[in-house]
Amino acid sequence: MVEQEFLKKLATKTDSKIVLIVMDGLGGCQNETGKTELEAANHPNMDALAKKSICGLSDPVSSGITPGSGPAHLSLFGYDPLKHEIGRGLLDTLGIDFHFTPDDLAARGNYCTVDDKGIITDRRAGRISTEKNIALCKKLDSMEIDGVKIFAMPVKEHRFSVIFRGKNLSDKLLDSDPQKEGLKPLEVTVTDKSAEISAKIVNKFIEKVEQILKSEHPANMILLRGFSKMVNLPKFQDVYKLNPVCIAIYPMYKGLARLCGMDVIKDCETIESEFETLTKNFNKYDFFYMHIKQTDSSGEDGDFQRKVKVIEQVDRVIPLLTNLNPDVIIITGDHSTPAVHAGHSWHPVPVLIYSKKCRFDKVERFSEIDSIAGGLGRINARDVMPLALSNAGKLLKYGA
Amino acid sequence: MVEQEFLKKLATKTDSKIVLIVMDGLGGCQNETGKTELEAANHPNMDALAKKSICGLSDPVSSGITPGSGPAHLSLFGYDPLKHEIGRGLLDTLGIDFHFTPDDLAARGNYCTVDDKGIITDRRAGRISTEKNIALCKKLDSMEIDGVKIFAMPVKEHRFSVIFRGKNLSDKLLDSDPQKEGLKPLEVTVTDKSAEISAKIVNKFIEKVEQILKSEHPANMILLRGFSKMVNLPKFQDVYKLNPVCIAIYPMYKGLARLCGMDVIKDCETIESEFETLTKNFNKYDFFYMHIKQTDSSGEDGDFQRKVKVIEQVDRVIPLLTNLNPDVIIITGDHSTPAVHAGHSWHPVPVLIYSKKCRFDKVERFSEIDSIAGGLGRINARDVMPLALSNAGKLLKYGA
Repeated sequence: MVEQEFLKKLATKTDSKIVLIVMDGLGGCQNETGKTELEAANHPNMDALAKKSICGLSDPVSSGITPGSGPAHLSLFGYDPLKHEIGRGLLDTLGIDFHFTPDDLAARGNYCTVDDKGIITDRRAGRISTEKNIALCKKLDSMEIDGVKIFAMPVKEHRFSVIFRGKNLSDKLLDSDPQKEGLKPLEVTVTDKSAEISAKIVNKFIEKVEQILKSEHPANMILLRGFSKMVNLPKFQDVYKLNPVCIAIYPMYKGLARLCGMDVIKDCETIESEFETLTKNFNKYDFFYMHIKQTDSSGEDGDFQRKVKVIEQVDRVIPLLTNLNPDVIIITGDHSTPAVHAGHSWHPVPVLIYSKKCRFDKVERFSEIDSIAGGLGRINARDVMPLALSNAGKLLKYGA
Repeated sequence: MVEQEFLKKLATKTDSKIVLIVMDGLGGCQNETGKTELEAANHPNMDALAKKSICGLSDPVSSGITPGSGPAHLSLFGYDPLKHEIGRGLLDTLGIDFHFTPDDLAARGNYCTVDDKGIITDRRAGRISTEKNIALCKKLDSMEIDGVKIFAMPVKEHRFSVIFRGKNLSDKLLDSDPQKEGLKPLEVTVTDKSAEISAKIVNKFIEKVEQILKSEHPANMILLRGFSKMVNLPKFQDVYKLNPVCIAIYPMYKGLARLCGMDVIKDCETIESEFETLTKNFNKYDFFYMHIKQTDSSGEDGDFQRKVKVIEQVDRVIPLLTNLNPDVIIITGDHSTPAVHAGHSWHPVPVLIYSKKCRFDKVERFSEIDSIAGGLGRINARDVMPLALSNAGKLLKYGA
């Protein structure tokens, strides 16, 4: 892998177009039938593409490391995920189109249920509706504690963001979410002395919220995690000379894309509408990041068959993409979420790179096992962007 | 590869168990029959395991680099072998259960034979018996030169350790062993001025030994190499949250294991007894490093058939291991020692990782050539520990 600073010197503007399709958690493992989700799925359009492509396997971070979606995406976008740590709070907040300032400290919030002793009985408050969430956030929004202004912004279902705005706030804080039911929410503590005032304000806020939500069962308490401040990532425009756009449904991925300099298209609700949006906007950009969430959520739920169906659903709309005739198409995942493990995993992710400039291999089916014999071999996810750019004719020669 | 500091943040204690079998110098090359040692050997138990595993090839240090056993093992244990240099003297000394202090300077000693002109005629003194070695070491032990106390500790056959104990000793010294017969032993010289006093003391010691051994033909002289002082390696307990044990026959490997924080089980003399020891101690630990020396020694001797037989001997006891039902089994070597090259080599080493969490590949036989098509692809030996930990469910997710 090379550093972005190096790529920046070689990247050059051209008219060619790159489409990167990230099927979240795409990589799988064999279930009792001996097949992975990709092998069990019927995906003739991806296979047709595989025949004209180069395939391989990619490690999101490094062998054996299971990444969250944040570091996995950063890596795929060409950033060193160990150098740029992005907290959950920041990601969620960027995703809801909140105008985040350097004075802001964000946290990911969950509405939860506690019993009369204050013990958590449901970390997700029965997954209350987004409407209920919006109503509750209105009650918590625009508080002020010790000169710090606090925003409560609904996300989806039980999830919301809290943003504390004030001078010298620090994110050196530990979560109030104990990540387990049967325990009380934790008092927020610091990992560095400089965050003591911030911890005090956050704890005062939680106390006030407890009073406000007292009679709102099942959403009668909150859990905060992933305290984070703004990070300044190099932008796609500057590093890669691209004019990029994100087509995604879930807030977090839109937030991450914004952080990288991407425009974000609003109001996509289905996989099909994501591909229609691509068609509509194809003339306006030269880099399209398309995010498909459902491969990951079905994998997380341990639902092998649902993940198979999502892959098939994506396959059916692939002709909408190929009809546009982009110069480079990449189909991959940010990480593996094998249904048999019902969670993210460390297994490398299949990657397919189509362009007319490929050195084609013998892979005829898009799958993890076929990709082992692919011409890309085993790469790191950070190699994807340089490969995308070179296949699009957007990287100059290095040296004479 | 990631750094140990990074793994340390993710590693977590669980009940699962990992067995790492290191067949020293396992990797081979084809002889005149067109087969490698692993391909020529009949190893049905390893092949049965390969079918339920993921296989690949691992570079101990980096492409083209031939490692000694020290760096090759360090890498397999997840340490950067270029950052942690461990001298032969230190390794041997740790292996014999000597209580090494930071004031100590150790060297690996060989008894050798010199003719009446002082020219080396046998670098190993006809491989004298360990009993003879013990008797000779008694004559050399507990000398004192210029305030430096000197210990001579027998190892096996012609091999012993010398430890110089005194203030400000340095290991910036070159060997007295010219590594060739037909030459005189070299005077010990320095690679840094700070070691001049140490060199003087070592040379005085060698002179005295020459007098003492004059009439002890064939062991009438010594050769010293691998001068080394203590190094402080991060411990398996701290980095990986493991409770590790070493099952080995040869001192050097026990020494290395101790340096990494492993308990060492004494008195294993055969491959079979190593596996019986594993069975007896299976409840006491969660990480088992098992070292098989004979694959390397037969390879070093250029004895293809003997190396084949050692592999078959290990294969016969594999059921003792699989009956224990460990969560993760890894079979690999520290480096290659192809019999056709009669020495260590740079060729990557086959590695097999068995766990229920694997994404299985199509490899049906455990060999170098089959492993080329394995799902692990080509990894670095430093990737083995993260893969072992993740397959054992001992690594937390990185990031949100």
